[in-house]
Amino acid sequence: MADQTFRHELAQQLRVDSVRSSAAAGSGHPTSSMSAADLMAVLLDGYLRLDFTDPGNPHNDHLVFSKGHASPLYYSLLKAAGAIDDEELLSFREFGSRLEGHPTPRIPPTDVATGSLGQGLPVAVGLALAGARLDRLPYRVWALCGDSEMAEGSVWEAFQHAAWYGLDNLTVLVDVNRLGQTGETMLGWDMDGYAARARAFGWHAVVVDGHDLAAVDEAFAEAVATTGRPTAVLARTEKGHGVRAVADQPGRHGKPLDDPEGAVRELGGERNLGVRVAAPENTGTPHRFPVGEATPPRWEVGEEVATRLAYGEALTALGAARGDVVALDGEVSNSTHSELFARAHPDRYFEMFIAEQQMIAAAVGMQARNWVPFASTFGAFLSRAYDFVRMAAVSRADLRLCGSHAGVSIGEDGPSQMALEDMAALRAVHGSAVLHPSDANQAARLVEAMADRPGISYLRTLRGKTPVRTPPDEEVSIGGSRVVRATDHDDLTIVACGITVDEAERAADVLEAEGVLAKVIDCYSVKPIDTVTLAAAASESRAVITVEDHWPEGGLGEAVLSALAGVADRPPVRVLGVRDMPVSGSPAELTHAAGIDADAVVAAARHLLRNPSPTVVG
Amino acid sequence: MADQTFRHELAQQLRVDSVRSSAAAGSGHPTSSMSAADLMAVLLDGYLRLDFTDPGNPHNDHLVFSKGHASPLYYSLLKAAGAIDDEELLSFREFGSRLEGHPTPRIPPTDVATGSLGQGLPVAVGLALAGARLDRLPYRVWALCGDSEMAEGSVWEAFQHAAWYGLDNLTVLVDVNRLGQTGETMLGWDMDGYAARARAFGWHAVVVDGHDLAAVDEAFAEAVATTGRPTAVLARTEKGHGVRAVADQPGRHGKPLDDPEGAVRELGGERNLGVRVAAPENTGTPHRFPVGEATPPRWEVGEEVATRLAYGEALTALGAARGDVVALDGEVSNSTHSELFARAHPDRYFEMFIAEQQMIAAAVGMQARNWVPFASTFGAFLSRAYDFVRMAAVSRADLRLCGSHAGVSIGEDGPSQMALEDMAALRAVHGSAVLHPSDANQAARLVEAMADRPGISYLRTLRGKTPVRTPPDEEVSIGGSRVVRATDHDDLTIVACGITVDEAERAADVLEAEGVLAKVIDCYSVKPIDTVTLAAAASESRAVITVEDHWPEGGLGEAVLSALAGVADRPPVRVLGVRDMPVSGSPAELTHAAGIDADAVVAAARHLLRNPSPTVVG
Repeated sequence: MADQTFRHELAQQLRVDSVRSSAAAGSGHPTSSMSAADLMAVLLDGYLRLDFTDPGNPHNDHLVFSKGHASPLYYSLLKAAGAIDDEELLSFREFGSRLEGHPTPRIPPTDVATGSLGQGLPVAVGLALAGARLDRLPYRVWALCGDSEMAEGSVWEAFQHAAWYGLDNLTVLVDVNRLGQTGETMLGWDMDGYAARARAFGWHAVVVDGHDLAAVDEAFAEAVATTGRPTAVLARTEKGHGVRAVADQPGRHGKPLDDPEGAVRELGGERNLGVRVAAPENTGTPHRFPVGEATPPRWEVGEEVATRLAYGEALTALGAARGDVVALDGEVSNSTHSELFARAHPDRYFEMFIAEQQMIAAAVGMQARNWVPFASTFGAFLSRAYDFVRMAAVSRADLRLCGSHAGVSIGEDGPSQMALEDMAALRAVHGSAVLHPSDANQAARLVEAMADRPGISYLRTLRGKTPVRTPPDEEVSIGGSRVVRATDHDDLTIVACGITVDEAERAADVLEAEGVLAKVIDCYSVKPIDTVTLAAAASESRAVITVEDHWPEGGLGEAVLSALAGVADRPPVRVLGVRDMPVSGSPAELTHAAGIDADAVVAAARHLLRNPSPTVVG
Repeated sequence: MADQTFRHELAQQLRVDSVRSSAAAGSGHPTSSMSAADLMAVLLDGYLRLDFTDPGNPHNDHLVFSKGHASPLYYSLLKAAGAIDDEELLSFREFGSRLEGHPTPRIPPTDVATGSLGQGLPVAVGLALAGARLDRLPYRVWALCGDSEMAEGSVWEAFQHAAWYGLDNLTVLVDVNRLGQTGETMLGWDMDGYAARARAFGWHAVVVDGHDLAAVDEAFAEAVATTGRPTAVLARTEKGHGVRAVADQPGRHGKPLDDPEGAVRELGGERNLGVRVAAPENTGTPHRFPVGEATPPRWEVGEEVATRLAYGEALTALGAARGDVVALDGEVSNSTHSELFARAHPDRYFEMFIAEQQMIAAAVGMQARNWVPFASTFGAFLSRAYDFVRMAAVSRADLRLCGSHAGVSIGEDGPSQMALEDMAALRAVHGSAVLHPSDANQAARLVEAMADRPGISYLRTLRGKTPVRTPPDEEVSIGGSRVVRATDHDDLTIVACGITVDEAERAADVLEAEGVLAKVIDCYSVKPIDTVTLAAAASESRAVITVEDHWPEGGLGEAVLSALAGVADRPPVRVLGVRDMPVSGSPAELTHAAGIDADAVVAAARHLLRNPSPTVVG
């Protein structure tokens, strides 16, 4: 029988320390912390198996604070567990402190950053998938959710997937404190409503008074004992529980208490209890998938291959050579060609159905356990998970993304399916690489390079076939580029990537017949970009044209302009991109209409070279 | 009693025409169309009240094809209803045709573009909200969903909100044909699973054989008769129903039939039935909210006001002057200050809780009925709805967005709450405006301008107060800029926006003391950008520095570089932005650490002017 007095004292300490740390910071969310203190006391003392002195221990349980704004509670439990001391606790939100306003992996054992609501649970699904299907270890994953975040659709993607994958190693604790930031949540204290939703989605659900320590203990025991499906512990709680001035009061969200000293007194004063969190048992080593001989795909110059197919083939070969590579797809694997990986390595392929947010979150969870996930869908639909990619960067996640069907060159399907903003969006992710190969050999080599690259890497692939130009043994590197054609006296530099490399080369042929020599640079690495090659080419040319199958904002053109920003004597640059909303049509009709085909490059070149120094050229 | 023979013939015609149009196009989704043909036959013949000759009729019902890939079915029903002829039907997916691969508003009466799954139903919630709460007309909203898209979390946001708002004018028809693009959906034909989910979310649910015309009729009647909550008609169907070669077969998604002629024969041949879709009754005029005298807010130079507060005040005044303005917020209205509008105009304020995707979708639905929605949340969390904003552009939606808490200047809350990619993401939306005022008067004037601007406009506001510099009567316009300080002989141009205008001005003071004259441009309209002013300033300066509280990619710096792209003689440009992942700290600590404060501007200026023509400057 657990010592309920100790747990009560521990819970009160977590409340006190939440109040103290928020007061010290002058900001923070103490009331959102106080509601879940009892849940955490029972978890720490009775259920969590986590060696805080060895955060990398593969047997550790994982605790994800999906309600990241309850960081005062999280840091208070780290203190109780001995992971930080009281001085560090009181550095909460200070510049330089590891204890940021919302948790990040800067403070171990935090797996991922939270603070954008509705993301922690989907990431926990990824961790639980890693435990059940990859590591094949009995660690458990505990996620603490707020009730406000249950409004996020991503939470229901997580519910759906966790049940479908039968993740009985996953428990979500929902802190139903009724009050959101500005008022009551949609469900308030309708515990039956939450339970009905959880059960309808295939979960075991337990409703409990979140301040009844014995009841919480029983619920956790039930969660651990439940097999074949995940468990939701739905805890009815009070926001600000334990301090009358704030308990269940509106208008108390996200601010320190007015009278923290009084609150600490009301909670029984400061304590300095330590809790001996159970260490995990050593239950063997994480599963390793067998590897074998793998032949990376290669194509001869002149073959016609879609870069999306090259992605699938390269990833499959990579998976044969490396057991840590896994793949996820958003139910379009026969379009992205991740189906090749799925067929070759079915145990390491995860079908995430049409739930892009859950797909990215699952990948983030898996990489937190050192797996090397590649997640693919149409480039256009990666935009669905943009907040997850943004947060993955805050999580310092190593993530590989592939977006297929880039640009108007997909043709008849129309603009809803065309990625036209993906390079802009992915470039604006901290530490990202944005790669857009023009041929199969480039794509394959970049897939291999992505596997070893820290941070978030994005490969943009094409629907249609393109001719192989890059010899199979030529070096292709993140940050590199390829000079497709050049002479010693180029009048013009044309910078292209992906489908427009063909167009640039055709344009150079036309221009050469007119006596204009053009250098063509295949800028397959849009970020990082090959500044040295571009600057040298620009300084030797009378004009630069960039051409991309993407909106003009934030893509190749602006990446080139950034690379040349410091060059004082650079010639005028003309950015060709898609400026009008595309419609359906053939790839040729659409690239022509968009002004990104060879005709457009030729016209821009004639204009620039005839009129090299206009005051303003859009 | 409905004529089941006619309906059967009509359904077969819809199948035949889906097969024919996809065959003519050589691509498309006939099998996904055939499963829902019976649902549409009953809807057209018995329930829809829509005057196809007058798509703008406010009394019309609305039909949203959330499964936009079933466009062959949609266009076939437009033909049956007399909205298009057979020749146009067969122009499906041709360049120039209104019948794009996925529906867009180019073909009336289509309200919104679909094709990114899981968006049509949330938009339908917006249309239904408009009907129930704004127009106050009894039109009904019908949404056709595929079963694959039920995996998207956004669908469950829609279920949650529709029930919470009691939208009994909304009916969703879920075409449960079991098969997705690559295989079976998670639920397959588990009709009870769908029903349990719908009911748990507060909907009335009816399970029906989707090919039993009488049963479908009964289900629709039940939907119409249900009050107080929306109805889900969960229809068990067969993909490719009616043609043995494809019915319920995997591997038949998204491609024309191999033998279209044989399929047409099997379906009983071509027909040319017309269906007289009921016109809506004229049930009075749409509700108009009373308007009155409104005093737009204005502040005197030197006052200290947060631009987010100016947003709230300006929007509230706008709402007093214009009855068509409505506001939505993602449960942070006391942070964005849309709460001021909510208090003044409670009937036109919509709390969308923490469901940013549903928030944007609801706004899109409302604007389709000519309301003027402003939707606000933290700028960082607009990234959650990026795919919805992307699709809003394809929908040609007029949408106003406000993202608060921009950049590292928010301080202690940390990077999860900081919008640092929002300008890049929103610039890369077709036809968008991206506005980032530095003071309250600018913010207020831009809010007013946004109300009249077609397309998607984004206002980026600051958490902290900034001094008012713009006189209250000075013109502030989308596409404009403001010269904060200038002489006739500036050595340097500093371009700033938002919080960095203060820093730029402080830097200019320091530089002036060193004998360097700097022009400071407040570039509050990042897109469209004031190219004329920037180009003139650049050509008169020895160097240009841009400084923004945003990643360097895709924001102000690259917008300025784009504006100057065609200027051959422009001086070197240095882009200052946030280059390392921020942490928590005070605004001053964080802007300093990020290298976007006055110190950083001064250092960059000294470097550039000492060394004006480096080969490459990052």
